Amino acid sequence: MNTYCIIMAGGVGTRFWPKSRQSRPKQFLDILGTGKSFIRHTFERFSRIIAAENFIVVTNRRYRELVLEHLPELTPEQILCEPVGRNTAPCIAYAAGTLLRRDPDAAMIVTPSDHIILDEEEFCGIIGECLDFVAGNNALMTVGIKPSRPETGYGYIQVSDQSRISKVKSFTEKPGLELAQTFVQCGEFFWNSGIFIWKVRDIADAFAKYLPEIHSLFSGIASAFGTEREQDAVERVFSECHPISIDYGVMEKADNVYVRCGDFGWSDVGTWGSVYTLSRKDRYANARPASGCYLYDSRNCIVSLPDDKIAVIKGLKDYIVVDTDDVLMICPRSDEQNIRKYIDEVKYNDGEQHI
Amino acid sequence: MNTYCIIMAGGVGTRFWPKSRQSRPKQFLDILGTGKSFIRHTFERFSRIIAAENFIVVTNRRYRELVLEHLPELTPEQILCEPVGRNTAPCIAYAAGTLLRRDPDAAMIVTPSDHIILDEEEFCGIIGECLDFVAGNNALMTVGIKPSRPETGYGYIQVSDQSRISKVKSFTEKPGLELAQTFVQCGEFFWNSGIFIWKVRDIADAFAKYLPEIHSLFSGIASAFGTEREQDAVERVFSECHPISIDYGVMEKADNVYVRCGDFGWSDVGTWGSVYTLSRKDRYANARPASGCYLYDSRNCIVSLPDDKIAVIKGLKDYIVVDTDDVLMICPRSDEQNIRKYIDEVKYNDGEQHI
Repeated sequence: MNTYCIIMAGGVGTRFWPKSRQSRPKQFLDILGTGKSFIRHTFERFSRIIAAENFIVVTNRRYRELVLEHLPELTPEQILCEPVGRNTAPCIAYAAGTLLRRDPDAAMIVTPSDHIILDEEEFCGIIGECLDFVAGNNALMTVGIKPSRPETGYGYIQVSDQSRISKVKSFTEKPGLELAQTFVQCGEFFWNSGIFIWKVRDIADAFAKYLPEIHSLFSGIASAFGTEREQDAVERVFSECHPISIDYGVMEKADNVYVRCGDFGWSDVGTWGSVYTLSRKDRYANARPASGCYLYDSRNCIVSLPDDKIAVIKGLKDYIVVDTDDVLMICPRSDEQNIRKYIDEVKYNDGEQHI
Repeated sequence: MNTYCIIMAGGVGTRFWPKSRQSRPKQFLDILGTGKSFIRHTFERFSRIIAAENFIVVTNRRYRELVLEHLPELTPEQILCEPVGRNTAPCIAYAAGTLLRRDPDAAMIVTPSDHIILDEEEFCGIIGECLDFVAGNNALMTVGIKPSRPETGYGYIQVSDQSRISKVKSFTEKPGLELAQTFVQCGEFFWNSGIFIWKVRDIADAFAKYLPEIHSLFSGIASAFGTEREQDAVERVFSECHPISIDYGVMEKADNVYVRCGDFGWSDVGTWGSVYTLSRKDRYANARPASGCYLYDSRNCIVSLPDDKIAVIKGLKDYIVVDTDDVLMICPRSDEQNIRKYIDEVKYNDGEQHI
């Protein structure tokens, strides 16, 4: 049985605006200053266990060249282009449809492109266990993460028992704080990493059963995959798909869903706050570029600058300062949930130019 | 009698760093957003009464091309280049020496290049009166400004009486606050504008008497003026000159010093604070670019951005935010006197690159 890794890289996230832009979203950035983009890290992480020719990246077509630039090991045929984003279910249906034609006995890993994992060895061991499990079972597997705090921005997975690989009892999307606290305390709940492992046949069966509309749309164009007609067919199908997540559309409904929980230093790096948490801080708890950032009487700030730019900052406490070539943002860290609002106002006044 | 206007434009001021730079100091900037640089405003102001061919600009040689760019009406021969800055006395000695050879009966106005004057008509009337006065008298004239506040950063001129043109009783450089308050209250003291009017013969006589060393250095190279030898000669002479201001070297010592005081909306625009005062403010008292500057919960700030850059700023009160292509500065308005300190630290770490 061959194993393939599907990297979902179609996001146009705005939470890191102005550093992330429509033209260069988060997965192509190195927000943590590691020297590599998120998508590059994702590729290298799975390259420990998957051969380069067995990767498939699904992305928006406007990012096709960017993907090839960040992952020069891939050939253009390994990039599947979505004309528009329709959440994860259509994305996975497209990848599964492609794979089903190419290698119907394959196992398939599905992963976001913009998360970090610190303990890659532990992580790859867990993925290996999941692959072993789905090889012998008709199982839709997901990877759970031991929660370290009552995060209200994540989905939670409840396990049925404490075995290494457990049947999933329930999914809960973004609980309130009180519920999240209960979840963390009781020990039965884990964060949903958005990483899935299954045989391509099994997920195809699940689509047929739980998302028959999407299933029939993609089955209907299967003969176009790998031909000149593919882009036109995909364009038509995506325009007819409703946006729906794989969690909501399949995982929450299916009765063969299993989870392997682990603790491997995962973060979705979803906010400037999480970047701050993950970054090295100076002795005044500022996360900032290693050079060229002169801070006076400033604490608990996160500063991001273009290469070769310097900053002199005085008297800021708990601030986010993000400077890019054409946008400067200065706002309190407590205010990061309003970035969306700022973007809307800028867009309203200036159009898409700075978005 | 012909009248010449000498514009002193050699300053390398750092108070507007990072907007002012060694490569483009304040006189070449449009810090107030008027559409014209300070030196351009200065030239146009005196052009009301002086023909273009009667201007002489004294500047550092590195700014020669910048001067010609800002004042295309001038010919290269009208730019005198200092190899190094030696304060105003050597600068004026050089200009006076040049003029003495060309037109020994001339009257001469000396002006800084980086001040603003709002009521140019009133101002030119005053300059006219001064020119009339020096035509008939061996007088070294300066222009005083009615003080509007007990400014401790300026020099003060004490008048002998309340006539329109009064003999100067005393000069006081940068008094303490208490003294400045007394000065403003008593009505005998005026700000020193740094603008001078005299006949070229009279200032030459004053140099001979009060600064004989400088006088003899420049007299000694007078035959080189206007020849190929000029630059070499000037280089040698400037390297031998001590830096000294015309106020300290001549005006405070001479007994034929007169002042014409007036009120014509003068500012030396010496600090971000004065830029703030002079700028149009929005309803939250922020001085900021007309477009592309999104301020939330921010008051009494001054924001300067490169063209076409936008900024989103939240929660700053009484701040200076100056963004340029390669330097970002964010500091409280009360902190502007420390800009010099920041520059020193940046210089120490990064060299001259960002200065």
